Amino acid sequence: MRIAYQGVTGAYSEAAALRLKESADVMSCPSFEEVFTAVDSHQATHGILPIENTIGGTIHRNYDLLLEHDLPIVAEVRLPIVHHLIVNQGTTLEQIKRVYSHPQGLAQCERFLRQLKGVEIVATYDTAGSAKMIKEEALIDSAAIASERAAHNFGLDVVQSGIQDYAGNTTRFLIVGTEATPLGPPDKTTIVFTVSNEAGALFKALSVFALRDIDLTKLESRPIPDRPFEYLFYADLSANREELRCARALMHLAEFAPSLKTLGSYPSWKQREEPS
Amino acid sequence: MRIAYQGVTGAYSEAAALRLKESADVMSCPSFEEVFTAVDSHQATHGILPIENTIGGTIHRNYDLLLEHDLPIVAEVRLPIVHHLIVNQGTTLEQIKRVYSHPQGLAQCERFLRQLKGVEIVATYDTAGSAKMIKEEALIDSAAIASERAAHNFGLDVVQSGIQDYAGNTTRFLIVGTEATPLGPPDKTTIVFTVSNEAGALFKALSVFALRDIDLTKLESRPIPDRPFEYLFYADLSANREELRCARALMHLAEFAPSLKTLGSYPSWKQREEPS
Repeated sequence: MRIAYQGVTGAYSEAAALRLKESADVMSCPSFEEVFTAVDSHQATHGILPIENTIGGTIHRNYDLLLEHDLPIVAEVRLPIVHHLIVNQGTTLEQIKRVYSHPQGLAQCERFLRQLKGVEIVATYDTAGSAKMIKEEALIDSAAIASERAAHNFGLDVVQSGIQDYAGNTTRFLIVGTEATPLGPPDKTTIVFTVSNEAGALFKALSVFALRDIDLTKLESRPIPDRPFEYLFYADLSANREELRCARALMHLAEFAPSLKTLGSYPSWKQREEPS
Repeated sequence: MRIAYQGVTGAYSEAAALRLKESADVMSCPSFEEVFTAVDSHQATHGILPIENTIGGTIHRNYDLLLEHDLPIVAEVRLPIVHHLIVNQGTTLEQIKRVYSHPQGLAQCERFLRQLKGVEIVATYDTAGSAKMIKEEALIDSAAIASERAAHNFGLDVVQSGIQDYAGNTTRFLIVGTEATPLGPPDKTTIVFTVSNEAGALFKALSVFALRDIDLTKLESRPIPDRPFEYLFYADLSANREELRCARALMHLAEFAPSLKTLGSYPSWKQREEPS
């Protein structure tokens, strides 16, 4: 099992991949597009993508990529995100003139960053990559916001730990593969569908699941650019698509939804697996 | 009418405020929190907040602030977002070594920025503020990503226009006031509610609207940090809360929803007002 992820070693996506399978071989990619390319071209067996964060919300870009590519979702992972302020050995909090990180990392530590006066905030393409740069360029007046693992991997110090503005900051990741073989017994199905702009259209869509006792664990509307009167919906169903009631519900929805795509059926991340 | 917004002159929030009312007096604030404070303390009659973007999705932070403060929503504005690469007069695309903007602005131009080789990307607290800094510090090797209005206001040049990765990039803004007096006849109501983790709980919640022919124009679930089995929902109803059917639907929902808050009833932004 070889899992492609966006970022460099120490990235949260890498940590999520290793949380899924400790013995997995991981493959660094510069962008989300290249994660899909790596799996499409069989350089990796799987790819991992952050899909939603408790603070930042849904990462629409990755839903777009899931729709553009035909790689089914085969698993999910939830990872608590703990950010650290990382420096070269010897640098103190007072010496820091610049802080580097991914825009999401910066946004999740906004309150903390605002209290650092006279510090320049620099956006980069990944959190762990910022730590790597601090090390390689031996920057003594700069810090990176990244994981503890990134600090450890690059031989850097944590000058302040747990700097995210909110406790409970968690990211949910999806794992895609070339074949629709879920990594365990599937009990969750992710779909994307549109509804027409008629009163009660969404209610009708949801009734196909409710009337079959299928619960939704996520539901989100997204305006479709240039089609202001049609809505795209992301939904997670708490059922395996192979179950008769779920298969029937999806066929029922397809009868009237202008579009419907099942992105995968996979095992949900179990709460008991979360560290207490 | 005095509208508080986050950012400096030339900000998209300022443009949205002026789109709502061309003759409005606008008031610059350094943060979203301070927009609420300005209205709470009567320094401004209204405040304006971006709430969702077609690419970036919902701005959860502003929903949190709406729940923390008791300022009702009285109007909404939709604004197409067109980003420009802005420089001091004479600077060419080739001379640019650094690009400054708000993380959302940077994210919305990610593809464009990736093709600029060897350019450093710097995150700031607002788009127009980046343009202001370029001007004030007379940076000749730097650019800002901001609105055309920001370029105009600070006497800067647009070196490349329309650099956002997606056409149709639109942000929806909400206007809050101290009193629940909508700025026109209300036909839209924004609510936040939770549902318990029972099969069909959401369907039951939506049925109170569907059974009364009230359509939903937005519906989004958000996991509640630290309460993994309860879900928070954001919903926009296409009805005035004062209408009997809407008032009854909300009372019906309150019968079984663990929590329900109406954030305001206001006139929806009309499509006919969009420039064609």
